[in-house]
Amino acid sequence: MVHFDYSLAENSSASEIMSSAFDSVKEEMDSDRIGYYKLPTHSLAHLDRLKELDTSSFSQIVIIGIGGSSLGIKAIDSILRPYTADAKEMLFLENSDPITIAETMAKIRRDEACFFMISKSGSTIETTSVLKTLIDHFDIDLDGSDKHRVVAITDSGSVLSDFAKHHKLLEFNIPDNVGGRFSVLSAVGVVPLAMAGYDIEALLAGAGELISDFFDHKEDHLLQKAYSYATHSKTQSINVLFSYADRLEDLTKWYVQLWGESLGKIDKDGNRVGLTPIGLIGAVDQHSFLQLVIEGPQDKSVTFINIEDFQRDITIPDVTLEGIEKTNFINNQTFGRLINEQCKATMQSVTESGVSTDSITLDRVTPANIGKIIAYYELLTSLIGSIFGVNTYNQPGVELGKQILYKNLSK
Amino acid sequence: MVHFDYSLAENSSASEIMSSAFDSVKEEMDSDRIGYYKLPTHSLAHLDRLKELDTSSFSQIVIIGIGGSSLGIKAIDSILRPYTADAKEMLFLENSDPITIAETMAKIRRDEACFFMISKSGSTIETTSVLKTLIDHFDIDLDGSDKHRVVAITDSGSVLSDFAKHHKLLEFNIPDNVGGRFSVLSAVGVVPLAMAGYDIEALLAGAGELISDFFDHKEDHLLQKAYSYATHSKTQSINVLFSYADRLEDLTKWYVQLWGESLGKIDKDGNRVGLTPIGLIGAVDQHSFLQLVIEGPQDKSVTFINIEDFQRDITIPDVTLEGIEKTNFINNQTFGRLINEQCKATMQSVTESGVSTDSITLDRVTPANIGKIIAYYELLTSLIGSIFGVNTYNQPGVELGKQILYKNLSK
Repeated sequence: MVHFDYSLAENSSASEIMSSAFDSVKEEMDSDRIGYYKLPTHSLAHLDRLKELDTSSFSQIVIIGIGGSSLGIKAIDSILRPYTADAKEMLFLENSDPITIAETMAKIRRDEACFFMISKSGSTIETTSVLKTLIDHFDIDLDGSDKHRVVAITDSGSVLSDFAKHHKLLEFNIPDNVGGRFSVLSAVGVVPLAMAGYDIEALLAGAGELISDFFDHKEDHLLQKAYSYATHSKTQSINVLFSYADRLEDLTKWYVQLWGESLGKIDKDGNRVGLTPIGLIGAVDQHSFLQLVIEGPQDKSVTFINIEDFQRDITIPDVTLEGIEKTNFINNQTFGRLINEQCKATMQSVTESGVSTDSITLDRVTPANIGKIIAYYELLTSLIGSIFGVNTYNQPGVELGKQILYKNLSK
Repeated sequence: MVHFDYSLAENSSASEIMSSAFDSVKEEMDSDRIGYYKLPTHSLAHLDRLKELDTSSFSQIVIIGIGGSSLGIKAIDSILRPYTADAKEMLFLENSDPITIAETMAKIRRDEACFFMISKSGSTIETTSVLKTLIDHFDIDLDGSDKHRVVAITDSGSVLSDFAKHHKLLEFNIPDNVGGRFSVLSAVGVVPLAMAGYDIEALLAGAGELISDFFDHKEDHLLQKAYSYATHSKTQSINVLFSYADRLEDLTKWYVQLWGESLGKIDKDGNRVGLTPIGLIGAVDQHSFLQLVIEGPQDKSVTFINIEDFQRDITIPDVTLEGIEKTNFINNQTFGRLINEQCKATMQSVTESGVSTDSITLDRVTPANIGKIIAYYELLTSLIGSIFGVNTYNQPGVELGKQILYKNLSK
């Protein structure tokens, strides 16, 4: 169960804008122009296909991908791992940083690894460069004994798809109407995470339930939040996602990409719009960023995420530190209670300072709950994009840098 | 060598404000009101004291601390580790997250570990709760066989100092005039990092050189940058630190604390001021946040950090991926060149979009260069704080949350 706490005093102009945003995303879904809404059911076919494969010889899943081809997978792996017995190890080769590449390669057990080459376009420079390096370093025989350990996930018809077909590799496709940052519930996330041992059917079911509840008007807090965020974007231009669990950090990075790249756009009237996403981790960032939220410019809204029951909790023992007896009030309490009370106290102090807050509460960490949060942020992003009047699904701003890079490196 | 690339077309009002900011930080130093300026020489005494200890039986350094008592140590450990042979393992117990605490405790080799309890006030709730848990879990005998493996770093006269004296533990003090987020070059960072095997004399020398060069007017780009950031804080309220190396991520977190908590304040006229810090990692975040920087609201400035020579570089092999031949231009180049060209291309595209940029270039990762960057950001923070007219060194905004927490937990 996930509780999304958001409410807005409705007024008539709000109601009209919210209704129009709802119709707009519904049209995206119904027309099949945008495909992520239907992934919770469409992706089940990948799971069926996986069941036919013998994956028992793999003890490692190596993801070669960056951006939308890694962030969502990492987010789910990170949060579910402590709650999933015997999940296979996952390694991520994302960046073009030589130190990281060398360190990650040193962890790969060549003969127990399954390599996932993930790229929507197929020609991502970081990803193809890493694949070349792995082929060379591990002497991977794509046409012989290693054929079964290299999997391609890409658009049908992409250059990576050509490569997979040339070597007759196992290939999964991303629907054309699903963009990279909305692709975690497509083959991109579903296939490697299921192979790692996560309960992906439950993850998809949770996401599917939230999406169908939204279209059944059972989750109208999403419309209210989208309306409020979009219409206050000039004054509250920054949204902070303050997660009270270390293992939600990768989810905040997934959210930063989704939010930043979808909404930071030139709108249909030529104006620059956007909401700046920031991910924080509680209680750590109470000792860092919180002062700025409370006393700095009031240009932020803050969403708190907490987990009511960590399940694997630790009780703080009844130990007295001589001289520090004043901390004895915490003895016999759990760390789970401490971090949740820290979340509550921080939210109260932020609210009292005049900053807008809202909260997302997971009763426990389950695949279904994480699926819901993913669907929640995807829907929220689409709704705000619709109110902004931007194309939520492209990223024209990053092209110039790529052109400059290719020009400079091809010299 | 570190090259700081910043320049400003000077005008007379700028010159007056810069001169006043310079005088203000010089007065902070000369009066000993603020102590971090002198740490590069004062902290040498800790290193002398460490030399008298036999630390050869420790193979693990466990840091129990949060915020200013861990961020700087982590930042230095993270970036220097690949370049430091035989550095002892460092583990960090920071957050009140039970999953992380359990996982980190499972990695501790009780009889090879040296535990550093670090807290300026001595009563930090996360830190004291973790210490209690470690004492109980590992059955640590503070008065007998384990006395030599527990070290306290705290203010003289704090409750943690009382605790250390009660058990006759080894204790190092943080000067009263050095705040937590400016304390990385005090005993807080110096003692555990030196024990881990890092060349802390070189780190201090690098920081000391930058500070003395600044006061000798050899680093006036710092004044210009402080002036420009402070006077544009209303329109460019966000500063992005875009670091092109994975292992600089912890340094960006240290910067976020320093910048956010020092500058997010109510100024002497009662106005809310501040600059919102955001840490990004290249090339990963080119696939995430960059779109927002280029096409979103122009409320950001961006500082790029790159490392010219990674030293441990990897050459991308001359492998052709059938179907993806168009990426062959990268073959025989190094990842180091790729990531640096990505930095250059991204900086050019961001600049061309009309966003203010500047850059910091390390020729190589060395302790001295990292010391310089730490001193650079500390000085920059003090200068901007002076121009803002805020108290750079306190954090009154976080007190309310603590009070609410204590009230709720003491019930």
